[in-house]
Amino acid sequence: MKSFGRLVSAFRCLPGVGPRQAERFATHFLKAPLSESEEFIAALRELKESVRLCRTCFNYCEDEICDICADESRDSSLICVVEEPHDIEAVEKTGTYKGMYHVLHGAISPIDGMGIDSLRVRELVSRIKNGMVSEVIIATDPDTEGEATALYLADLLRGLVPKISRIAYGVPLGGDLDYTDELTLGYALRGRTKL
Amino acid sequence: MKSFGRLVSAFRCLPGVGPRQAERFATHFLKAPLSESEEFIAALRELKESVRLCRTCFNYCEDEICDICADESRDSSLICVVEEPHDIEAVEKTGTYKGMYHVLHGAISPIDGMGIDSLRVRELVSRIKNGMVSEVIIATDPDTEGEATALYLADLLRGLVPKISRIAYGVPLGGDLDYTDELTLGYALRGRTKL
Repeated sequence: MKSFGRLVSAFRCLPGVGPRQAERFATHFLKAPLSESEEFIAALRELKESVRLCRTCFNYCEDEICDICADESRDSSLICVVEEPHDIEAVEKTGTYKGMYHVLHGAISPIDGMGIDSLRVRELVSRIKNGMVSEVIIATDPDTEGEATALYLADLLRGLVPKISRIAYGVPLGGDLDYTDELTLGYALRGRTKL
Repeated sequence: MKSFGRLVSAFRCLPGVGPRQAERFATHFLKAPLSESEEFIAALRELKESVRLCRTCFNYCEDEICDICADESRDSSLICVVEEPHDIEAVEKTGTYKGMYHVLHGAISPIDGMGIDSLRVRELVSRIKNGMVSEVIIATDPDTEGEATALYLADLLRGLVPKISRIAYGVPLGGDLDYTDELTLGYALRGRTKL
């Protein structure tokens, strides 16, 4: 059936969904009541219509400004720079950070055609220039692209902000020294703190 | 975000999708271009609007009658009774069956509230009464519900059709006798054929 194949193709676009799972999903909708598919369509449509980027930090939100930027109890002199919106959630879960965020929406990656212009860097610079920012914490991913982005940002922001920092590299908690790769362990040694 | 949570809930209804995967799917649509979500919505809507049940065999199809029922080269005196539409595909893949099908849309299962009335049994009986059917092959699943359904159908159809048969139980090809459960092996012994 043509329409079945079309829905299977649509499901194949989802991350990590193979041909068998896509078929299972499509079969589910064949049997499901009309109300379920209508709810699905309405939910997807609402998401695409109501979600936009926060004018200040570029996190996803449903208003002009996201909840974090609108929260006046937070410290607006601290900006934590992350690659993606879901990174914000990870930092928030620690419960130890009460500053602001800035989402780059990617990292420098020449192979994927991600240059500086495709990131929200210009907006970060003008945010720092217009505000009273005392520290920028760069929390990009600890991989090649994240590292390159961190170094680039540190260079760019030097002189604009009193302090630029990078989240610490080291052995993860609950990890096993024996199983830690030598690069991470090397960073953990260099980054040792006094007790 | 409310709309994000709504889409995550919608994805949770899909078979085998847990909270993390549902979130990944919803996040995918946050980033995806509008054209992709529109194609998704259109595909789902087309499926629900165009797919119906074949008037004769109750397989899914997009016309009044499915391709198999419309195929005049097939043997209309043979009816293979299956539980679900996807079982037809499994039988078709063998390439050895050239008769018709009848989809019950379930099996007798008192626990799930599936009685005889929720199955397409009445339609099967009238099909047999109105046509020149020489054999009904019962290909319900080899589990308790499928077996109960097979026995019930055999009782019901006796006298209406010259031959009623059930697909064979036995050891699966490529299987290992050692790893075959004793029930299956017992059936394989009783159903032995002369060489």
